[in-house]
Amino acid sequence: MAARHPQLNENGELRHLLTLEGLSREMLHHILDTAATFVGVSDRDVKKVPLLRGVSVFNLFFESSTRTRTTFEIAAKRLSADVVNLNITTSSTSKGESLLDTIDNLVAMHADMFVVRHAQSGAPFLIAEHVNRTRGSEVHVINAGDGRHAHPTQGLLDMYTIRHFKQDFTRLRVAIVGDVLHSRVARSDIHALTTLGVPELRVIGPHTLLPGGLEQMGVRVFTDMRAGLRDVDVVIMLRLQNERMRGALLPSAQEYFKHYGLTEEKLALAKPDAIVMHPGPMNRGVEIDSAVADGPQAVILDQVTFGIAVRMAVMSILAKS
Amino acid sequence: MAARHPQLNENGELRHLLTLEGLSREMLHHILDTAATFVGVSDRDVKKVPLLRGVSVFNLFFESSTRTRTTFEIAAKRLSADVVNLNITTSSTSKGESLLDTIDNLVAMHADMFVVRHAQSGAPFLIAEHVNRTRGSEVHVINAGDGRHAHPTQGLLDMYTIRHFKQDFTRLRVAIVGDVLHSRVARSDIHALTTLGVPELRVIGPHTLLPGGLEQMGVRVFTDMRAGLRDVDVVIMLRLQNERMRGALLPSAQEYFKHYGLTEEKLALAKPDAIVMHPGPMNRGVEIDSAVADGPQAVILDQVTFGIAVRMAVMSILAKS
Amino acid sequence: MAARHPQLNENGELRHLLTLEGLSREMLHHILDTAATFVGVSDRDVKKVPLLRGVSVFNLFFESSTRTRTTFEIAAKRLSADVVNLNITTSSTSKGESLLDTIDNLVAMHADMFVVRHAQSGAPFLIAEHVNRTRGSEVHVINAGDGRHAHPTQGLLDMYTIRHFKQDFTRLRVAIVGDVLHSRVARSDIHALTTLGVPELRVIGPHTLLPGGLEQMGVRVFTDMRAGLRDVDVVIMLRLQNERMRGALLPSAQEYFKHYGLTEEKLALAKPDAIVMHPGPMNRGVEIDSAVADGPQAVILDQVTFGIAVRMAVMSILAKS
Repeated sequence: MAARHPQLNENGELRHLLTLEGLSREMLHHILDTAATFVGVSDRDVKKVPLLRGVSVFNLFFESSTRTRTTFEIAAKRLSADVVNLNITTSSTSKGESLLDTIDNLVAMHADMFVVRHAQSGAPFLIAEHVNRTRGSEVHVINAGDGRHAHPTQGLLDMYTIRHFKQDFTRLRVAIVGDVLHSRVARSDIHALTTLGVPELRVIGPHTLLPGGLEQMGVRVFTDMRAGLRDVDVVIMLRLQNERMRGALLPSAQEYFKHYGLTEEKLALAKPDAIVMHPGPMNRGVEIDSAVADGPQAVILDQVTFGIAVRMAVMSILAKS
Repeated sequence: MAARHPQLNENGELRHLLTLEGLSREMLHHILDTAATFVGVSDRDVKKVPLLRGVSVFNLFFESSTRTRTTFEIAAKRLSADVVNLNITTSSTSKGESLLDTIDNLVAMHADMFVVRHAQSGAPFLIAEHVNRTRGSEVHVINAGDGRHAHPTQGLLDMYTIRHFKQDFTRLRVAIVGDVLHSRVARSDIHALTTLGVPELRVIGPHTLLPGGLEQMGVRVFTDMRAGLRDVDVVIMLRLQNERMRGALLPSAQEYFKHYGLTEEKLALAKPDAIVMHPGPMNRGVEIDSAVADGPQAVILDQVTFGIAVRMAVMSILAKS
Repeated sequence: MAARHPQLNENGELRHLLTLEGLSREMLHHILDTAATFVGVSDRDVKKVPLLRGVSVFNLFFESSTRTRTTFEIAAKRLSADVVNLNITTSSTSKGESLLDTIDNLVAMHADMFVVRHAQSGAPFLIAEHVNRTRGSEVHVINAGDGRHAHPTQGLLDMYTIRHFKQDFTRLRVAIVGDVLHSRVARSDIHALTTLGVPELRVIGPHTLLPGGLEQMGVRVFTDMRAGLRDVDVVIMLRLQNERMRGALLPSAQEYFKHYGLTEEKLALAKPDAIVMHPGPMNRGVEIDSAVADGPQAVILDQVTFGIAVRMAVMSILAKS
């Protein structure tokens, strides 16, 4: 019998959210369905439900990200949880305390949920396995982005957005464009899109920014953006990290934009009703032209809105497991 | 027809608070009257009213100011709002995201109110005009100090303080002393005092720290502090920024204190019941002597107390517009 | 008549918590008894009681300590207080405002409680005396660690832990091991253990890290750890500050561990049911071996759990005084 994945409990329910890899189609739709019930909450005058009252949520950001931390903080507060923000780069790890000692301490304070962002791939897994081993089923871990590995809530909000605008995944052609090699967002999206039955998944980027093994995963690889965008329903642009532009992998931002920046002219090759997504923050004029970012096909701000509902859904599902 | 000011809605109600310039006497008194109803709240055992329950207030501090941020945070929490603090100097703008992309993102998270502090004059206007253009009447912007331009909540709490101690603005002689040139507080005070009908408004400071055009605004200008303080009812001291003392505009802090520091001896020239105000933080021994700062005529801590009520008033008025 | 200690009011009730020195045995047990009523709260699904609703608690950390700040933040939130975190190193004191002006300002905002951490011994006393002098009985100060002086809530949670596991203080042999000279934890523990009637209190460490005058306080001093641990019921390990290791007081971390690191072999000299405590964060392999830290006699994480209840107890007792 295969070892159970640390994010599932003995009933196969989600206990942590570490990765979208291996989650069933039913589980993904269950999360998206739950998120749908929360979309309305943020529209009300009183944007709060008492679902997580008295629950202690810790934002453990070992890598700083105000934007992502904010989305989780808002989601938790709209569920009436108590939120404590810990920016651990400037904290006790600098006093030489180990990661797991820090976790043990917070667990001993009766934390209920950890939202973990870490520059090292696998850190949230390590934490989840540790709490599984030491404290039974009480504490829940949400991966808010670990190294190049996974960013499951971003993957889920991308799925929510696609389902919202396109309904049926099984008829779609989806293209992911840019620095796939370093992107945890791309990795989470590929897992989810595959599970949800997208028949044609494309990846577009320069050779230096594409990982190996994509074809074996059933993904079509394009280095020519125009060919890759032809007739797609969904374009997911990736952020080009500044450090790539400075490094040896790319000639220059201008050169990148010329080949892989999404312009109105290139977007015209996709289906006329194709939607354009981006996880933010955008580098306008590098991976995406402002005319597209602010244009009628962009659903980038809808992603942000749905992201709050998706995070509320994940937190409330975990809290019940 | 003149273009409507971006801080007013089509009914002439306050939708944002960006500047006191152009606000009517009625509007100013309405805000002060509303603040009066909140002064008692902070005195109670349970210092909370549920007026802004479920409302999401974002403190967007592009320029760090713990003191001002704290006053808004307390005001919002006493109104039962959810508060998220964003220190944007260390945030996504450092990832190259534009100011307005940041704003769009927060709006997409269903923010209700932005409290904006920015080193650049006009930044809160830019944000207000942007949300007016893009999202209808849902998001409210409060200027918590922008460059040298305006600090309207400080201006309002100064007016509250003066009204509390002196009742009738139309019989007062008010002196503002110090670095008027660089002071957004002075600018907001001058607009409000003029609107509220103060018949004699004086400004006192060295030539190098006084802006031009004051006389045209009906302000009497003094470079001799003793002459300027004679028979005034209200003395508003301004903070001397440290960078001025280091710069070429002033010979030295000692020299400044000698000429423009408020001592008991100089204060004796004002009316015996004159009140002394200061926006804080004070440079004791530079612009104000400790004997005055801690003396019976100082109402500096009353300003702080009233400041919470004034900010609660502004937030609750905007939330209803 | 002796001057009243600033932490007591005219009825001898605790108004501030500044030090454990001078607190009566009854007072200490009263705090521990109150804490016992809160231990259950953190175990519930809804970990909140409305005792401090509408109360404004300010965490004033002039010295950064995410861990300690977090314990107070959680304790306050579980009491339903409003918490404002002020990291004052980066705040208005850098604008040249004096400590007491900062305090006056926060008092004027109707703060109810200050949790103060400061690198300088005595700073919380200074603040408590100042608010006593200026504002009557309204504001409460909790010392969250001041210089080398005191860390009373850590002392109290240590006492809670000992009472929990050993019940009767009057039959115990307790050893405190390590850098007693620089430890505010040791100082608070020694005061409390003495008051609570511990008949044999030992201190173990190298000469360079032991203060003078211990024998006069009734403490037995050991430089040989094996001799000092013999037959003790409780071992309180102290954290070795990194700066000591770098300084001239100690040869090296390895050398320190050899002589004063707690290993299973050394621990075997204590009573078989002796408990091992540590205030955290631990330097594994320096003052404590991992086999001990994670072993069956360690109650280090229990200390953390009890610490939340103890801080809730202190806050609720002060709020009623």
